[in-house]
Amino acid sequence: MVRDTKKAEASLESLQRIFTVPEAPNSTLGSIEQAISQNLNRFLQDHIAATDRSLTDIEKDFSNPAIPEQPTFVSDHTEFLLDKLVSQSVHTSSPRFIGHMTSALPYFLMPLSKIMIGLNQNTVKIETSKAFTPLERQVLGMLHKLIYSQPETFYESCMHSAHHSLGAFCSGGTIANITALWVARNSALKPDDNFKGVAEEGLFRAMKYYGYDDLAILVSERGHYSLKKSADVLGIGRESLVAVPTDANNRIRLDKLEETIAELKARNVKPFALVGVAGTTETGNIDPLDAMADIAEREGMHFHVDAAWGGASLMSNNQRPKLKGIERADSVTIDAHKQLYVPMGAGMVIFKDPSQVSAIEHHADYILRKGSKDLGSHTLEGSRSGMAMLLFACLNIIGREGYELLIDQSVEKASYFSNLVANRNDFELVTEPELCLLTYRYAPDAVQKALAQATPEDVEQLNALLNDLTIFIQKRQREAGNTFVSRTTLKPEKYGRQATSVFRVVLANPLTTQEILQEVLDEQRAIAETSTIALPQLLAKAEEILTR
Amino acid sequence: MVRDTKKAEASLESLQRIFTVPEAPNSTLGSIEQAISQNLNRFLQDHIAATDRSLTDIEKDFSNPAIPEQPTFVSDHTEFLLDKLVSQSVHTSSPRFIGHMTSALPYFLMPLSKIMIGLNQNTVKIETSKAFTPLERQVLGMLHKLIYSQPETFYESCMHSAHHSLGAFCSGGTIANITALWVARNSALKPDDNFKGVAEEGLFRAMKYYGYDDLAILVSERGHYSLKKSADVLGIGRESLVAVPTDANNRIRLDKLEETIAELKARNVKPFALVGVAGTTETGNIDPLDAMADIAEREGMHFHVDAAWGGASLMSNNQRPKLKGIERADSVTIDAHKQLYVPMGAGMVIFKDPSQVSAIEHHADYILRKGSKDLGSHTLEGSRSGMAMLLFACLNIIGREGYELLIDQSVEKASYFSNLVANRNDFELVTEPELCLLTYRYAPDAVQKALAQATPEDVEQLNALLNDLTIFIQKRQREAGNTFVSRTTLKPEKYGRQATSVFRVVLANPLTTQEILQEVLDEQRAIAETSTIALPQLLAKAEEILTR
Repeated sequence: MVRDTKKAEASLESLQRIFTVPEAPNSTLGSIEQAISQNLNRFLQDHIAATDRSLTDIEKDFSNPAIPEQPTFVSDHTEFLLDKLVSQSVHTSSPRFIGHMTSALPYFLMPLSKIMIGLNQNTVKIETSKAFTPLERQVLGMLHKLIYSQPETFYESCMHSAHHSLGAFCSGGTIANITALWVARNSALKPDDNFKGVAEEGLFRAMKYYGYDDLAILVSERGHYSLKKSADVLGIGRESLVAVPTDANNRIRLDKLEETIAELKARNVKPFALVGVAGTTETGNIDPLDAMADIAEREGMHFHVDAAWGGASLMSNNQRPKLKGIERADSVTIDAHKQLYVPMGAGMVIFKDPSQVSAIEHHADYILRKGSKDLGSHTLEGSRSGMAMLLFACLNIIGREGYELLIDQSVEKASYFSNLVANRNDFELVTEPELCLLTYRYAPDAVQKALAQATPEDVEQLNALLNDLTIFIQKRQREAGNTFVSRTTLKPEKYGRQATSVFRVVLANPLTTQEILQEVLDEQRAIAETSTIALPQLLAKAEEILTR
Repeated sequence: MVRDTKKAEASLESLQRIFTVPEAPNSTLGSIEQAISQNLNRFLQDHIAATDRSLTDIEKDFSNPAIPEQPTFVSDHTEFLLDKLVSQSVHTSSPRFIGHMTSALPYFLMPLSKIMIGLNQNTVKIETSKAFTPLERQVLGMLHKLIYSQPETFYESCMHSAHHSLGAFCSGGTIANITALWVARNSALKPDDNFKGVAEEGLFRAMKYYGYDDLAILVSERGHYSLKKSADVLGIGRESLVAVPTDANNRIRLDKLEETIAELKARNVKPFALVGVAGTTETGNIDPLDAMADIAEREGMHFHVDAAWGGASLMSNNQRPKLKGIERADSVTIDAHKQLYVPMGAGMVIFKDPSQVSAIEHHADYILRKGSKDLGSHTLEGSRSGMAMLLFACLNIIGREGYELLIDQSVEKASYFSNLVANRNDFELVTEPELCLLTYRYAPDAVQKALAQATPEDVEQLNALLNDLTIFIQKRQREAGNTFVSRTTLKPEKYGRQATSVFRVVLANPLTTQEILQEVLDEQRAIAETSTIALPQLLAKAEEILTR
C-alpha cells in the first residue's frame, strides 16, 4: 500500500497502484533487496539472529488466525518479516551449516528467479508458457542424455514430440518417486483384452483380473520414506513396500533380494517394481545398480532408481562409475535443488522409454487436448511454475565440466573430513563417504577402547549413553547457531545392529573450507565437555570396563 | 562465470566466485533486474515479441540434448534467455490477456520472492525452515478461519499443535485435491479390528475387508480434470469418478445426484466422497454446496469442495453468500496463485477437522519424528519452498478489505462485460458470470435469428460452423498477440447439449479496463470478418433459413 496517509487504507486506486508502482528504491523493501543483491551472505549473517529462540516462543509471533481487516504498508510488513521471520530462519547457505542437502546457490539465480516470477508462466500448457514448454522439454532431454546417452536421432524424434515424454519436472523427489511408481503400477496392471487397465478400472478390479493376491515394491531398508508414502497413495499399502536388508555398507543385499522375490512369488504376490537407491539420504551409499538391473529384467519388474540426491554425480566422469547400471533403469529421480544447486522446488523423474508415460496420460477439453504438446498431460501436478528455466541456466552457465569440479571437490572434502574424524581419538567414523555424505559420532578414546573389549550387555549400555551424548551435542550445536550438522539413527552391523544416533554431514557447499570442518569438530568436543550427565556416566562406565 | 578471459572456463576459483560475487549492476543481468524492478509491464512489453513464432520454430532454439561441456558467461546466457525465452513467453500479467486464471501480481512480491529464494528454506521440517513452520501454520489457520470461522480457542489449541494440522500447503490445486481424496479414501477404509487400514494394507485387502464391490467419487460433469487424475493415482480408477449431470447453470443436479447414489448403493458400490465445485474452471459456476452438504452428511461421505479458483471470493462479504455451505465441507482446495494474487506454485487444502490428516501421517527416523511439528509429516510433497511467506505478505498488506475490493471489482467487471456481449448484436453470451468468469461466442445477428427458427438439423449445421469460426478467431487473436481470451467446449442445454466452442474470459486482473474489454470484442469481430470459409458459409446458411 502506498504511504500517502498515516494508516494504510483499502481503496481501489491504492490497490491498483500496488499492481503497477514498484517500491521506491529507498523504501525498506528496496534497501533489503539491494542488500541481498550486494551480498546475500552478509545480509543473512546480519539478520539471522545468533541466539536461538524456542519454537514455542517464535509461534507467539504467528498466532493470530484472523486475516487483518485493514491493509498494512509494505514497509511496515517488511519490517515485521525481517524481525520475526528472516531473523528466525535457517541459514541454509552458510558454509558452516553442513547438515543439510541444501547448499549455497550461484548468485545469478537470484535475478533470474525474479525474471521467472515476473513472467509467472504456467507450464501446465503451451498457452500459458509458450517457449517455456520446449525449454522444459530440452532440460528433461539433457538429463535423459546424461543418464541414458541415447543417440542423437532418438532425441530428434522424441524430445519435442507430442506423443512422447522424456520425463516430468515436478516440485521435488517425492512427487518424482510417486510418478515413477504410478507409471510402474499402471504398466504392471495395464489394459488387456476386456480389462481397461488399473487407471480406468481401479486397483480392486485390476487385482481380480490379473489374479494376484498382493503387489510388492522392493527397496533396501535404507530407501527414502517417500517410497512408503508412494505405496500408501497408490493404494498398494505401506506393508507392500518390502524392505530388503543391507550389507555393512548400507547397500541392498542381493542374496536377500533374491530370497524375498522367491518368497513373494510363492505367496502369489507380484513384485512389480524394484527401487535402487543412488545416494541414500542417511548414509549416501549407492546400491549395486547393475546387478539389480539384471534381476529386475529377469523378473519383469519396473526398475526405478531414486537418485534424488546422488544423481547429480553423473555430471562428473570421475564419479559416474559409482552409479554404473543407472543407465539400465526404467526411471530415475533427480532433484535439481540438491546437488545441481537450484533453489527448492525442482524435482525430476526421467523415463528411459519415452512412451512409458502414456500409462498416466490425462486429457481435458479446455487444456491438454489430445495431440497437444502440453506438459500437463504427463505430470502428477497441474499448474506449475517455470522452475526449469533456473536449471537450464545452471546447466549452461556452469557447464558439465563446472559441475564435475563442484561434485569432485565435494567428494574430496568428504574424504578429507572422514580422515579428520578417523584421526581424532575422540571421534569415530560410522559410515565412510561414497560421495560427499558421511556419518560419525563423538566417542572419547577411553570409551572406544572399552567398546572394543566390552560384553554385549556393556556395549548396549555404552551405546545408549553415546546416543544421549550425540543428541545432546547436536541439539546444543544447532541452538548455538555457529555450525550445524544433522542427526539420524542407524543400525550399523559393526555395533551389533543396535540403534545408533549419529551426526550426518553433507559437504556440497563449495564455500565450506577445511578450517570450517576442523572447527565443527572442535565445537562438538567443546559441547561434549559441558555434558554433565551422559559424558561423566560414559567415562565412569568405560573406566569400569577397562579396569576389570 | 566471471568474464576474466574471453572464453568462460571451469575452474574451482571461478566456480566459487559464482557462489559469492553478485553480478555487477551494469551487467546484462543486472540491467534486466533493474528494468524489471522499475517497470515490469514495460519490460515485458518491450521484450515479449509482438509477432507469433510457431512452436515448431521455437523448438529449434531448444533442441540440443547435450549439456554443454564448457561454462558460459552469465551475460551471454542471459542474452540468450532474453532473445529466445523471454521474447517467446506469454504476457500473463497483461491487462489485455483476459483468458487465464493468472493475473498481474502486486509489485512487492518480486523483491519478497527474492528474499524467499535467497533464504532457500525447506519447509519439510523445522530444522530447515524454523520460523517458516509457524508462519505456514498461521497461513493455514487464516484460511481455515476464513472458511470455517471456528472460535478462538479452537485455533489456540490446534494451530501450532504437533498432533493437529489445519491443512497442507502444496504446489497447486491438483496436489490439494489428491491430498483431500487421499484423506477421504484412507478414512473410508480405516483401520478396524484386525484390519490395519488401507494405508498399511492397500486397496485390494481393504475392499475385501469392507466387502464393497467398488468405490465411487461423485462430482458434477463440470468437475476439474485433476479429480480424474486423483482417482487414477489413488487406485480408485477413473471410471469410479462418477460425473453427475448439471442444470442449465452448470450446477450439479441434486435429483440426479440422489439417483446416482441410490443406483451405486444398489450395486454395492461405496460412494465415499462427494466433491462440490466452487467456481468451475470452464464456466465459473458454484454448486449448491449447502444442499450437497446435507446429502454427504446423510450418506456418511467425505464432502470436499474444490474452490481452487472461487475460494478467494470468501474474502468478500458481498460474494460469500454465493459459497454458502462451504463451511460444512470436510476439506476445501484453494489456490493462492489464482485470485489471491500470489505467483504460480501456491496451492492449499484445508481440513475442517484438524485430526483428519492423521489418516495420511508419515514419519521417518531422521526427519518428521513422531511428536514433531514438522510440516512434512502431513503433506504429499516432501521438500518444499517457503511460498507461504508470499501469501502471508499479501494477506497482511492487502488485508481482507483490500481483497474484498479486488474480488468485487472483478465481479462487477464481468457483469459489465456480459452486458457488453449481450448488447452487441453479433455476440452471444453462453454462460452468465456468477463470479468473474463467463463464456460467449461470436455469432452475427442473422445467424442468431436463423438459430431461433431453425430445425434441429439446421441448428447442428450452424453450430458446427460457429465452432469452426470460434476456433479460428481465438487462434488468430492469440497469434496476433494484442489481446487474449481462452477457449473451451461446453454442451449448453440451450443449444440442445451439442458440443459448443466458446470464448472464456476471467476478469481478475485489476488493471483490465472497460476500454480494453471493448477492444477485445472489436478485435474479435474484425478477425471474424477475415474468415474466408466459416463466416461466408454461416451467413449463406442463415440466409437460406431466414428466406425459407
